[in-house]
Amino acid sequence: MPIRLDTRSADFPAAFAAFLDSKREAAADVAAAVAEIVARVRAEGDAALIDLSRTFDRVDLAARGIRVSADEIAAAQDAVAPQTLEALAFAKRRIESHHARQKPKDDRYTDALGVELGHRWTPVDAVGLYVPGGTAAYPSSVLMNAVPAAVAGVPRIVMVVPAPDGEIAPLVLVAAQLAGVDEIYRVGGAQAVAALAYGTQTIAPVDKIVGPGNAYVAAAKRQVFGKVGIDMVAGPSEVLILADGAANADWIAADLLAQAEHDTAAQSILITDSADLAERVGRAVADMLTTLPRAAIAAESWRVHGAIIQVSDWDEALDLTNRIAPEHLEIHCADAEALAARVRHAGAIFIGPYTPEAVGDYVGGSNHVLPTARSARFSSGLGVLDFMKRTSILKCSPEALHALGPAAVRLATAERLDAHGRSILVRSNAGSGVA
Amino acid sequence: MPIRLDTRSADFPAAFAAFLDSKREAAADVAAAVAEIVARVRAEGDAALIDLSRTFDRVDLAARGIRVSADEIAAAQDAVAPQTLEALAFAKRRIESHHARQKPKDDRYTDALGVELGHRWTPVDAVGLYVPGGTAAYPSSVLMNAVPAAVAGVPRIVMVVPAPDGEIAPLVLVAAQLAGVDEIYRVGGAQAVAALAYGTQTIAPVDKIVGPGNAYVAAAKRQVFGKVGIDMVAGPSEVLILADGAANADWIAADLLAQAEHDTAAQSILITDSADLAERVGRAVADMLTTLPRAAIAAESWRVHGAIIQVSDWDEALDLTNRIAPEHLEIHCADAEALAARVRHAGAIFIGPYTPEAVGDYVGGSNHVLPTARSARFSSGLGVLDFMKRTSILKCSPEALHALGPAAVRLATAERLDAHGRSILVRSNAGSGVA
Repeated sequence: MPIRLDTRSADFPAAFAAFLDSKREAAADVAAAVAEIVARVRAEGDAALIDLSRTFDRVDLAARGIRVSADEIAAAQDAVAPQTLEALAFAKRRIESHHARQKPKDDRYTDALGVELGHRWTPVDAVGLYVPGGTAAYPSSVLMNAVPAAVAGVPRIVMVVPAPDGEIAPLVLVAAQLAGVDEIYRVGGAQAVAALAYGTQTIAPVDKIVGPGNAYVAAAKRQVFGKVGIDMVAGPSEVLILADGAANADWIAADLLAQAEHDTAAQSILITDSADLAERVGRAVADMLTTLPRAAIAAESWRVHGAIIQVSDWDEALDLTNRIAPEHLEIHCADAEALAARVRHAGAIFIGPYTPEAVGDYVGGSNHVLPTARSARFSSGLGVLDFMKRTSILKCSPEALHALGPAAVRLATAERLDAHGRSILVRSNAGSGVA
Repeated sequence: MPIRLDTRSADFPAAFAAFLDSKREAAADVAAAVAEIVARVRAEGDAALIDLSRTFDRVDLAARGIRVSADEIAAAQDAVAPQTLEALAFAKRRIESHHARQKPKDDRYTDALGVELGHRWTPVDAVGLYVPGGTAAYPSSVLMNAVPAAVAGVPRIVMVVPAPDGEIAPLVLVAAQLAGVDEIYRVGGAQAVAALAYGTQTIAPVDKIVGPGNAYVAAAKRQVFGKVGIDMVAGPSEVLILADGAANADWIAADLLAQAEHDTAAQSILITDSADLAERVGRAVADMLTTLPRAAIAAESWRVHGAIIQVSDWDEALDLTNRIAPEHLEIHCADAEALAARVRHAGAIFIGPYTPEAVGDYVGGSNHVLPTARSARFSSGLGVLDFMKRTSILKCSPEALHALGPAAVRLATAERLDAHGRSILVRSNAGSGVA
């Protein structure tokens, strides 16, 4: 049974604080092992990739090639059902058109003192996308990571994906092709991250690495950060559903379980003002679990990390929501829009009963890579801005420098950075004078 | 003497690659010491801050108070020269009005299938600003970090600054007051970062920590990342100047030295197509060093990390510029605007001879916290977006879900996430049907 909390209990504040602080994943300490792998890839290049892939993935890259060939991608295309290809193309088009609206605008203006200011956005030159292998190789994640990079205008998008026993899911290769990935390499783990950061004979280095992975991949991303950019380090996924007594218990139960089936560390939370709905949702979850293929995973997630929280009113519910800062928030309430407007921290909000989170996972158009583990307090989902950077621009005429110079010299003097001040004063030899 | 490179030399490619790879700072391994400090602050709270500050800063916080009082801030105001206060206020206004233009816009629209999409930007609830003590306590940096947070609408801005021997530079307190900092605590080092991340009896925790610091501060920020957000880990500063033969050698020398006086690890680079200008700039630097207060620092930076690179043409210069991805780029060339437009990677560009970088450090209006050590390839200077986050919004009507559902179910099936598919199919019991 999931945890049951009620804001009217005397011990609620302490119980909720403990719930917020609970860790859902043991942090494996793999830093030393990863540092060794990164060092080997830097020193040995392709030879290290071949050797490590033989050990970890039971695949001979010397024979198969590190790079996935055009023929293999074409074969993958033939292996996928046409209707699935269509669904993937539909998803890609929707993700693309939604993200196109995120493209930032350049700015350039002259202010009242005649100073020209502005900024210009440019794409990252080369991005590496890590895709996990095995059952977690999700084509939808390939689209969600690669399409925003393509929309940003990244000229070179590289994908790495492990090939355990030589296998890569055909749909992952097809999604990569569709999303505009330029190069695919069959290598995974910390060695793939090291190759992307430092380069090998076969894989040219990239400037930024994105995409989810296991503890080794996450540790490798942390270690190469600085040499290259990285995206956030994703934790286990979570959903919070706000629902009133009129909500459909079956739909809510289905959405809680869609979250729970991801991973035993996933978390599904219901907040409601209705004891009756809480009861009905609890029963509906139990019912659905009896027929779900991934019932073992979903049941454990629900039992260990699930929660049903009863509140007295929606102010309370919003306060708890903002403290949880959920990755996904569904609102099944009469005044869903008004409640949504008052949420300060959430990765994504799904408004109303006809917006199951799963639709956003695939074809809504917005990104499904979202901040987990309360990090929506300070970070955003993946988007076009993650693949671009801003260069600021400043341009002074002699007159503009004359207007700005004295204050700058004064502050430089106060900070005892005399050479800073002199670099302005030396220009006073010019016609207009500065200070 | 700084390194001299010439693209026409046979060994240029190797020499330039070595130059790009050279490290300017030894990475001190303080991770274990920092982990211990963080654990102590989490366990002991204020008591640990008091004890560690006695050891590291020779200050008794039990007697002085951890929080800087309103009286102390008022006294600091009185201690600063009126003209300096005016210069600071001038800088603050310019930074504020420039950053106001960075405020992002919300988006909400309905697409052709009737799906409502959008995103909403909200500020971070609480931000902690680390300010180094001693000679590196720069009031300009207080403004550059705090003003964008205030413009973003952050409701609570907290500053921590060490008080070695009890002293905090009055101008730093005044800048904090001016920039809208709500609370100031006289504590520094890893212990201050831990207090901001986890909270103590006196200091409530924040959601994001920004600002530069020494190796201990940087390591502490890395360790608390995830619990809170952090900004980039800043390295030593650098400037690259592009100049043609008509440029003013004295102005360029002054700008190279303004960079070099920061730190012996700072880097100043000149790229020119004129052997004559290279010669004149080298001599001007040597001349100016004889009268500069911080000559010892600037001379060592120039000798060890400085570089003059001679190119055959501006295509070569731009290629090298993009590979260096400088924090600061000055362009002293006839066609400065045209060259600037072709730069892909730089933190900030200063166009034309009347735009010394130092003016941007203080009063240009753009931010002086910029990506160092080639990280302009993948990251931007500090700005309003660093203090906000984006929540995506999705809302389907029954009809919109009907249009999206089948493709989502098909992809969920392909990914073997049946509960995802069922959460959509269960809604087909509703009037319109879904799949």
